[in-house]
Amino acid sequence: MKGVIATRAPEATVVDLTHGIPPQAVLLGALVLRQAVPYFPKGTIHVAVVDPGVGTERRALCVVTNAGCLVGPDNGVLSLAADAVGIRRIIELTETRFFLEPRSATFHGRDVFAPVAAALAAGTLPSALGRDRSDLDRIAPPEPVHDAGLVRGEVVYVDHFGNLVSNLPPQVFPRVPFVVTVGDVRVGSVTTTYADVPVGTTTALVSSYGLLEIAVRNGSARDTLGLAVGAPVVLRPA
Amino acid sequence: MKGVIATRAPEATVVDLTHGIPPQAVLLGALVLRQAVPYFPKGTIHVAVVDPGVGTERRALCVVTNAGCLVGPDNGVLSLAADAVGIRRIIELTETRFFLEPRSATFHGRDVFAPVAAALAAGTLPSALGRDRSDLDRIAPPEPVHDAGLVRGEVVYVDHFGNLVSNLPPQVFPRVPFVVTVGDVRVGSVTTTYADVPVGTTTALVSSYGLLEIAVRNGSARDTLGLAVGAPVVLRPA
Amino acid sequence: MKGVIATRAPEATVVDLTHGIPPQAVLLGALVLRQAVPYFPKGTIHVAVVDPGVGTERRALCVVTNAGCLVGPDNGVLSLAADAVGIRRIIELTETRFFLEPRSATFHGRDVFAPVAAALAAGTLPSALGRDRSDLDRIAPPEPVHDAGLVRGEVVYVDHFGNLVSNLPPQVFPRVPFVVTVGDVRVGSVTTTYADVPVGTTTALVSSYGLLEIAVRNGSARDTLGLAVGAPVVLRPA
Repeated sequence: MKGVIATRAPEATVVDLTHGIPPQAVLLGALVLRQAVPYFPKGTIHVAVVDPGVGTERRALCVVTNAGCLVGPDNGVLSLAADAVGIRRIIELTETRFFLEPRSATFHGRDVFAPVAAALAAGTLPSALGRDRSDLDRIAPPEPVHDAGLVRGEVVYVDHFGNLVSNLPPQVFPRVPFVVTVGDVRVGSVTTTYADVPVGTTTALVSSYGLLEIAVRNGSARDTLGLAVGAPVVLRPA
Repeated sequence: MKGVIATRAPEATVVDLTHGIPPQAVLLGALVLRQAVPYFPKGTIHVAVVDPGVGTERRALCVVTNAGCLVGPDNGVLSLAADAVGIRRIIELTETRFFLEPRSATFHGRDVFAPVAAALAAGTLPSALGRDRSDLDRIAPPEPVHDAGLVRGEVVYVDHFGNLVSNLPPQVFPRVPFVVTVGDVRVGSVTTTYADVPVGTTTALVSSYGLLEIAVRNGSARDTLGLAVGAPVVLRPA
Repeated sequence: MKGVIATRAPEATVVDLTHGIPPQAVLLGALVLRQAVPYFPKGTIHVAVVDPGVGTERRALCVVTNAGCLVGPDNGVLSLAADAVGIRRIIELTETRFFLEPRSATFHGRDVFAPVAAALAAGTLPSALGRDRSDLDRIAPPEPVHDAGLVRGEVVYVDHFGNLVSNLPPQVFPRVPFVVTVGDVRVGSVTTTYADVPVGTTTALVSSYGLLEIAVRNGSARDTLGLAVGAPVVLRPA
C-alpha cells in the first residue's frame, strides 16, 4: 500500500495508525478508528482495512466526513468513526480506473483502497470515484450504559495474550473513584499500574487500543477467569 | 538506521516495508522483497537486512536494477527481487568511507547499509560505492510448478504460530475455482475467511507475506497436521 | 500522538524509534534511548513514553541536551540518554496551555508529550514550556564492570519469549575473542548466528535492543537455565 501511495501521490505523508488489529477484528478496528480520527488534522484521508477480508464481497467506500475522507470496505469498520465526526456524503468506489491493474481478488488494501486514497491525496474529488449511496453498513458495538451511577459495558474482544478488551473508553469512566468488576470478579481500581500488581494478579488498565482491558500480569485473564466475549464489565463508585 | 538516514539524507522519505521477517528467514525476506519492489516508484532505494546475520561474513552489495537500487548483504535476500525487475549492475560496497565510523561487527544495517542508502539518496552514484561484480549469490526457492492443471508448491517457512507458509503467491493461483491440499490433507478453497471457519479448523489463506498459508484457527497447523518445511502444497481445480 | 503532531506541527517528520518496549520496562526504554539518540541529527526532538505509566504521578520534562530535546516523564527513561549526550537545561512542563484539552489522566503521551514536542518542532523555546529544574530522576542500571580482563554485567530484563537481556552493549565487548557466561552456564562466543545453533541450544547474541541477550533457539532461556533479572553475565577472553 505504501508503495502504491508513494508512486501515485509522492507528496503525501503516510502515517501508520496501527498494524495491531488482529485478523477479522472489525469491531476492534472500528473502535480504534473512532478513537483516533478526531486527533488528526481535518482533511486527513484515513484508510482502514482489517485482514483477511477475502471471500467476503463488500462494497468499497469513500465516506466524506467533517474530519476528512474515510476509505475502506463497507463492513462497518468505517461506521463508528464516520458517525462520530459526522457524515457528509457516501461514495461507493465503482470507478475502477482509479484501481491498480491487474487487481487481485485478495488485496483490496493495495489494489483498491491505497490507489483511491492516493487519488484523493493528489486532488481527485470524491464524487469522481463512484456513485452516491444513501447509507453504509454499520457495526453495532454494545454501547456503554450509564445506570444509577454505574457504567455497564462488556468484553468485546479477547486478544492472543488472553487479555479481555472491553467497550469502555476512558471518556465514559465515572468522575469519582471507582472499581471494575468483570463477570463476578471484583478487579479493583483502573489506574493500577502493572508495577503495583504481583505476577498472576488480575488488573484493569487502559489498553493500547484506548479501551479498558482486564489482564492478568504474566498470565491470561481469559483462562484465569474463565470469561469470554460478552462478559459484563461494570464500573461502580469505590 | 532511521537516525543515520535522517542525519545523512534529511530530505529522504523512509518507508517501513516490514519488520516482521523472523530471524534468519532469508528466503522469506527475499520472497517479500520480490513481492513489494514492483509497487514502489522507480528509483526507490530498497534496503533489506534479515537479523541476525552476525557471524556470517557476507559481502555487502548495491544491486542497480530497472526498479531502483537494492542495498543489503550478498546472502540471497536481494536476489529474487533483483532478478524479477532486471539487474543492470552489481556493485560490492568496498568504499568504507561511506560507512559509519566506528563500525560495529554486528550492526551492518545501521553502520553499512543505512549510510550507503543515505549516500545514494543524497546523490552519490552507485559506481562510487565500490567495485563491479559479475554476479550475486542467489537463493533458490522451490518455484511453483504448473503441471496438468495443478499448481505444485511446498511449505517454505513455519512461523511462530505454527502457520505453514508456502511458496505460492496469488499470481500463480488457477483462474478457475480450486482447492488446496497440504501433505495428504485436503484443506479446501483458498478464499475462506477466518470468520467462516470454526476454531480448530484448518484453512488456507493469503498471508501478510503475500503467500498462501495454511493455518489452524486459534491453533497450530504445524502441530495439528504434523507437517514441516518441504511439505507439498497443491492447488487443483475444484 | 502522530495525529496530534500532524495537527500542530505539520512540517515535522515523525520517526518511530520503537514500539517494542514492554509495559513498565523503563530501564529497557532508557537503555534503548541512550543507544539511539546519538545516531539522530542534532536538534532532533525525542519523545519517550513507557506504558502504562498511569497511576504514577510523574513530573513531565523537557531535557535540553547537546543532541536535542528529550521529552517524557521524570521516571528515569530520559536520564541515561540525557547524561550520555550532556544536559544543558531541565524544564518541567508546567505550562498546561501547550497540552491537549481535555487532558486525560491516562494518555500523557498523546495529551502532554506529543503536543509539547509539536510545540518545540513548531519553534516554541523550551524555556516557554515551564520552569527550570536543577535535576531529574535517574534510573540506576547496573553498569558493566571491567575487572582484570573480564567484563561483568547482569540480566536486566527477561522478555516474553524468556530471553535474558543483559546490560552489555557491543561497545563494552572485549577487543579480543571472548566467551559469555550467564549464571554458572558457559554459553560460548557472542557472534554465533541462530543458524549455527541447533534447536534447544543456548546462545548469546546482540538483541534488537542493542544489548547482549542470552536466548535458547526455539525455547526459553529463563526456563531452560532457571535464571532471572540480576543473574550475572560475564565476558572473558576465550
